[in-house]
Amino acid sequence: MALHPFDRAIQTMPEGTEWFCAHTDDNYWNMNGPFGGIVAATLLNAALQTTRNGFAPVSMTVNFCAPQAPGALRIRCREARAGKSVVHQSLEMFSADGQVVSTASLVTARRSDTLSHLAATPPARPEFKTLQDMVPDPHFAWLDRYQFRFIDGELKLDAVANATNPSAVSMLWVADHPVRALDWLSLVALCDVFFLRIFHLRNELALAGTVSMTAQFHASADDLARQGKLPLLGRAWASVFSRNFFDQQAQLWSYDGQLLATSTQMAWFKE
Amino acid sequence: MALHPFDRAIQTMPEGTEWFCAHTDDNYWNMNGPFGGIVAATLLNAALQTTRNGFAPVSMTVNFCAPQAPGALRIRCREARAGKSVVHQSLEMFSADGQVVSTASLVTARRSDTLSHLAATPPARPEFKTLQDMVPDPHFAWLDRYQFRFIDGELKLDAVANATNPSAVSMLWVADHPVRALDWLSLVALCDVFFLRIFHLRNELALAGTVSMTAQFHASADDLARQGKLPLLGRAWASVFSRNFFDQQAQLWSYDGQLLATSTQMAWFKE
Repeated sequence: MALHPFDRAIQTMPEGTEWFCAHTDDNYWNMNGPFGGIVAATLLNAALQTTRNGFAPVSMTVNFCAPQAPGALRIRCREARAGKSVVHQSLEMFSADGQVVSTASLVTARRSDTLSHLAATPPARPEFKTLQDMVPDPHFAWLDRYQFRFIDGELKLDAVANATNPSAVSMLWVADHPVRALDWLSLVALCDVFFLRIFHLRNELALAGTVSMTAQFHASADDLARQGKLPLLGRAWASVFSRNFFDQQAQLWSYDGQLLATSTQMAWFKE
Repeated sequence: MALHPFDRAIQTMPEGTEWFCAHTDDNYWNMNGPFGGIVAATLLNAALQTTRNGFAPVSMTVNFCAPQAPGALRIRCREARAGKSVVHQSLEMFSADGQVVSTASLVTARRSDTLSHLAATPPARPEFKTLQDMVPDPHFAWLDRYQFRFIDGELKLDAVANATNPSAVSMLWVADHPVRALDWLSLVALCDVFFLRIFHLRNELALAGTVSMTAQFHASADDLARQGKLPLLGRAWASVFSRNFFDQQAQLWSYDGQLLATSTQMAWFKE
């Protein structure tokens, strides 16, 4: 059976203690390098191969350090500190010429059932079936690897000049394309699936890119299994745009209304 | 002139290339180690001594890897990658016995005036003068190093059994005590000044602690200077509590209503 394009893109092979090799993949290419979600998922794929049994992701920060050319990658994954129930890993990704292209830290933990409480307000959820697919822009290969069905705050690049969307909020259903059963790897990639809020604010593309993303994991393995190949409900917004940067906040909800992940980014933009 | 207790607590001395020494400080002691904000500020203090001229903080992630005993600390600060306008630094903090107690990554950038847009809703701000100081619990030294004036969602540990605060939201004025002019160092510490949301949810203390915090910086040096020694308005909330962890989101607003920083944490709790 052929690998799903996502699994092909994030393949990592152990290469001695602490090291892994990987390769960029054209199917998830963005403007100036790989789609950031694939970088995050590739790093997590390496890290989870060394994570202790029974430990699941809690939090991951990925720093996108430089534009990246197509080619071979090497990943170094070290255990910074291991406690009884929480482990910290430190990761670096290198391009073929030995330069650092991204760094990351991952917290995993032995998690069990405890008090569970949703404080966030679940968003309204018009049915997936009633909405239209976004037509992917052929300039960005990775857009074709996801199905986007906007509920609100879609990107309107053909909007009249100076039309802006001051809230910069988007709500959408999103799924891997072709569909793929959700796991930690696709979940961390989905944390980066939202278009940069500066595009939404101004209704136009700009030179821009994420410099750091933090993904927070709230799901159990059972939650992931129950979600399977169903679409996720995503909500993305920003707090403030200032001095070449803005924050980008996001929530990913399961088809049945559970908050699976939250994430935040700082992204650069050129005016 | 005597150093402010904050400046004494975060002192870091260069000790050869890439290395700094520091020391824990009883004045900012928490339950099982230093107040996390002081750890973050000490790491940032080391990092900013090696940051290039004209570069200001954009995003910082601090991973709290282990409980920490009082004593000497060593910090290693490496430049992971330097671009023309964005630099990535990687940090590790070691206890006297050579164990990693925290790791961090810092993004700094050459930032300039651009389009500026506040998308977040500024919170209502009852006057600082009209509110009462929280009486600090003498068990936690660091509480005495801040002035807290709650507007909403204060911690009610004497509340009737089973009383809960399902929103887990707090709003408060907060300032260094004694007052101190705001800089990047105190700003990153303030990102961790909010009590853990699990305490607010249940109106009782619990075994709990932050494992990872990300602080995002939106202010300019001029914004910090204008704020000076005035109190900041803080807002903290959570999205979800699940499987021994919860996220904790926060905003720090200047006295005159600018969003200076946003932050997020994942924190562990024992039920």
